[in-house]
Amino acid sequence: MKFSPLVQELIDSLRCLSGVGAKTAQRMAFHLLERNRHGGMKLSDALGRAMDSIGHCQKCRNFTEQDLCDICQSPKRQLAEIICIVESPADVIAIEQTGEFTGQYFVLMGHLSPIDGIGPDDLGLDTLAKHLASGQYKEMILATNPTVEGEATAHYIADLARESQVSVSRIAHGVPVGGELEYVDGNTLSHALSGRKNYSA
Amino acid sequence: MKFSPLVQELIDSLRCLSGVGAKTAQRMAFHLLERNRHGGMKLSDALGRAMDSIGHCQKCRNFTEQDLCDICQSPKRQLAEIICIVESPADVIAIEQTGEFTGQYFVLMGHLSPIDGIGPDDLGLDTLAKHLASGQYKEMILATNPTVEGEATAHYIADLARESQVSVSRIAHGVPVGGELEYVDGNTLSHALSGRKNYSA
Ligand SMILES: [Zn+2]
Ligand SMILES: [Zn+2]
Repeated sequence: MKFSPLVQELIDSLRCLSGVGAKTAQRMAFHLLERNRHGGMKLSDALGRAMDSIGHCQKCRNFTEQDLCDICQSPKRQLAEIICIVESPADVIAIEQTGEFTGQYFVLMGHLSPIDGIGPDDLGLDTLAKHLASGQYKEMILATNPTVEGEATAHYIADLARESQVSVSRIAHGVPVGGELEYVDGNTLSHALSGRKNYSA
Repeated sequence: MKFSPLVQELIDSLRCLSGVGAKTAQRMAFHLLERNRHGGMKLSDALGRAMDSIGHCQKCRNFTEQDLCDICQSPKRQLAEIICIVESPADVIAIEQTGEFTGQYFVLMGHLSPIDGIGPDDLGLDTLAKHLASGQYKEMILATNPTVEGEATAHYIADLARESQVSVSRIAHGVPVGGELEYVDGNTLSHALSGRKNYSA
């Protein structure tokens, strides 16, 4: 005994969403069918168009439905001498929201992960090597996550840059501004200590 | 600064799924775009067809893409003298899997919940009243959940049946078979005690 074929197909299809197991998929399907058919229709439509027409920016690899993303199309940014390497499109947004950065980005769409079979080619590092060799950039900021994988990826990319004339920096890690010392994890505190700076009041 | 329009639309649309917040929707969208376009396409298709053509069984209210669901179409079941009231399609499947029940079902698709504006009409109790008045049924089993709302709903439906000649029963509540007493919650244990039966070894 199963649900009707189409109900079962909907439940099974929902499991392609990351983090959605059998019970959650069932709850989602019933909720849509019973309370939000309009939302379900809109999702079906958005999904279809997104899967079909969202690709990667030819320059920075961020998701876009155009050949070049808005940032890479901006005339000011095309002359930038700094390129910032991030793991995900969400990181681009986080950095843009600071208003502190006006250079270009390169979005890895992940990090090196030999276990999952994700190597340099999957992160577009061949494209990045060409950007670095072009002579446009003076500095590359490594803004990968401060995780084991993010550090390993940063390390690998730093080596890439050594062949070109690009200086390499890494975003600072330490105690979050506004955070209280006693609630900061030990690893972060170690980083904050070893990365201490001269203080002139 | 936002994601590209279509990426943002996909993220926003995913939030119509129950339990999906902004961060989760973003993670789901990136996962589909980067790792599972095929799954995303299949989901779009299944969603569209499901929202369009799944309705309620005219007899038992369960989800089906036909006028009557498979159970209500079964000739044997059409003669059944017992009707079992459940809250959700998943409950029908759970009871079918026991193989112990061969009667008909009535699926409330929820429970009475004045706070959420869900009253008797939303649960199809007018239809149920007609079934009970038809003279076909000798017994109605109340299998709503043993929650406050489920009990209140069972109580309301039992009153409905009093007007017809249908006897009303409630599924037993107690210690789960195979469960250990010390891990059973107090409420269940109270039910198990007050519902104790004569024991003849
Ligand atoms: Zn771009
Ligand atoms: Zn039915």
